[in-house]
Amino acid sequence: MPIIALLTDFGIKDGYTASMKAVIKTICPQASIIDISHDIAPQQIAEARFVLWTSYRYFPANAIFVCVVDPGVGSGRKILAVKTEQYIFLAPDNGLLDMVLSEATIVEAYSVNNTEFFLGQISSTFHGRDIFSPVAAHLANGISLRSLGASISLQQRAEVLLSISAKGNYSGSVIYIDHFGNLVTNLRTERIQEATVIIDGNVIPTKNTYAEAEIGEALALTGSSGLIEIAVRNGSAEQMFDAGYGYKVELRVK
Amino acid sequence: MPIIALLTDFGIKDGYTASMKAVIKTICPQASIIDISHDIAPQQIAEARFVLWTSYRYFPANAIFVCVVDPGVGSGRKILAVKTEQYIFLAPDNGLLDMVLSEATIVEAYSVNNTEFFLGQISSTFHGRDIFSPVAAHLANGISLRSLGASISLQQRAEVLLSISAKGNYSGSVIYIDHFGNLVTNLRTERIQEATVIIDGNVIPTKNTYAEAEIGEALALTGSSGLIEIAVRNGSAEQMFDAGYGYKVELRVK
Amino acid sequence: MPIIALLTDFGIKDGYTASMKAVIKTICPQASIIDISHDIAPQQIAEARFVLWTSYRYFPANAIFVCVVDPGVGSGRKILAVKTEQYIFLAPDNGLLDMVLSEATIVEAYSVNNTEFFLGQISSTFHGRDIFSPVAAHLANGISLRSLGASISLQQRAEVLLSISAKGNYSGSVIYIDHFGNLVTNLRTERIQEATVIIDGNVIPTKNTYAEAEIGEALALTGSSGLIEIAVRNGSAEQMFDAGYGYKVELRVK
Repeated sequence: MPIIALLTDFGIKDGYTASMKAVIKTICPQASIIDISHDIAPQQIAEARFVLWTSYRYFPANAIFVCVVDPGVGSGRKILAVKTEQYIFLAPDNGLLDMVLSEATIVEAYSVNNTEFFLGQISSTFHGRDIFSPVAAHLANGISLRSLGASISLQQRAEVLLSISAKGNYSGSVIYIDHFGNLVTNLRTERIQEATVIIDGNVIPTKNTYAEAEIGEALALTGSSGLIEIAVRNGSAEQMFDAGYGYKVELRVK
Repeated sequence: MPIIALLTDFGIKDGYTASMKAVIKTICPQASIIDISHDIAPQQIAEARFVLWTSYRYFPANAIFVCVVDPGVGSGRKILAVKTEQYIFLAPDNGLLDMVLSEATIVEAYSVNNTEFFLGQISSTFHGRDIFSPVAAHLANGISLRSLGASISLQQRAEVLLSISAKGNYSGSVIYIDHFGNLVTNLRTERIQEATVIIDGNVIPTKNTYAEAEIGEALALTGSSGLIEIAVRNGSAEQMFDAGYGYKVELRVK
Repeated sequence: MPIIALLTDFGIKDGYTASMKAVIKTICPQASIIDISHDIAPQQIAEARFVLWTSYRYFPANAIFVCVVDPGVGSGRKILAVKTEQYIFLAPDNGLLDMVLSEATIVEAYSVNNTEFFLGQISSTFHGRDIFSPVAAHLANGISLRSLGASISLQQRAEVLLSISAKGNYSGSVIYIDHFGNLVTNLRTERIQEATVIIDGNVIPTKNTYAEAEIGEALALTGSSGLIEIAVRNGSAEQMFDAGYGYKVELRVK
């Protein structure tokens, strides 16, 4: 069964994602649909970029990712179809795929514009339903990527993460805040036990697990995505440090 | 694989919808279940009516819609089973189906009361689990609609939408507010470029896409459901105009 | 198709549950995954315990329940694999299964520690993805429960519910608050019509259905889980009584 994974900022109240799934099931009844998230904050491409990056690698080979955080919908922005060694990604050309494409090898890429694979009527505001979903379903049915449109040349994207192996002082930032209030940074190191993590002048003790901290205590640890996170055991680091996206985090490795 | 679509106000925290899905899968293991929404505001039939109307037409033929926003549960209210040319709908007889039934042709309709297709024990508060889900699963297994209960005569419902093709001044209202804060009206016209949209004394410029407006600017456009919406680019019209359900919107066509 | 049911406090925004589903589908493509809830309040084991208890009995036989509300993740806490007459449950050894295991007969139980069925790399914070999901998928593929680790002896758990059949005055408490604001108590009786329910000094009239109360009026009834609930018709009892978990409720049976 082909797998189609959905990532949007459409929320789960309005039925928008149901229309997408309905279109997919109409064209490719055997598709198995997995929601990555529909609760990306409206138009926040950076959130979607991170959430996609943390989850895509766990999917079975040949999964098709449909990513629609698309503030430019209806404008001239391109829709990208990108094949990597393992997967296919559909997304607006707005940076959403950048973290994935900084580490995955691009095999081929196209600008999606063959209307043969779109719905008959295209709204100007909901390409998730009218373009992305039918295209994904046709791909799941086996059409070739090249039938979608003109081949384009995509560069490997620059790495947004800082991988630290040497001694020194490093400056990073919060790139994601999860629903527990954990602050995920763009820093990673194998040497977290020799490191000091500082946020807003506070030195945060490094630990291996949440359970090593006291309840209510802040800790820094390597989170499940391999990045340094600041957390509060059974609490919210976001609240404790009143921190937001882009908040500065320092790392000192002895 | 038969498709069963669920639309409720049960939320996604309490496990209520999981019980419905569990009942369906027990009776009809091959059913493919698609959530339309479970975040309809509690008891807000008008929200469910609109969300169903915007999404149902995208489903594959023969889909079974299970719609449970049911403030009268346990009272004498009927449960309707309605077959249209394409679909089957199960819903309380409380107006939830009215927008669909204003445009879909009713083939047959029944009042659901054959307890043979219900769970063995019927609670007085959760017919979604005890009646709607097993009935839907038995329908997916192929029982006839007429085996559910007494045939009833349902009228085609009155149109709640105003389709405007001639010059003039028209008065409409907000019938749905989506999670982006877009205000969906009951007005539609092919002539939006010749129209002026007014809310609370404010003349809103008409556009074809969100991207034609400046960031933070209000615009009126034909939304993905074909209705005139008032939106704010990368913002919330609901907040900008402090608007709620039923808020008056004027349309002037030159 | 094997059924795997997921219950977590991971929320639906961050993509954590998508990683779990992706791992499951990679190992057992034919698994059918049903979400019970991912909106358990962070680390609130008591909420998960109740939600599991209300829903598990409706699942098809042989369903596998993956329950991850796990504040002790990364500590020495055990992961339990428990087979009852109908189902398999995976959960941290933190009380999450207690309500189920107070009524279901335990057939066998193991402490999960055979790394052969884990992902290759185990994070210290996300065992839902790295241990629970692959183990569940391997179980769905047919491995024996005993291959997961050492057999352990689990006691039947004590009943947390109070089943009342005789006259008298009883003291119970709120053990769950659902998204409608209904207050679910740990009290049940076949004699609710002869009973008086009192919360914070207020005598609440007993009814059979919500619809028997006036709009805005409080009522006590036997809810869909068989427990006495305090509700407000078309409103929220949580708000009306400013009640929380553990709030005392009295029952007097004449």
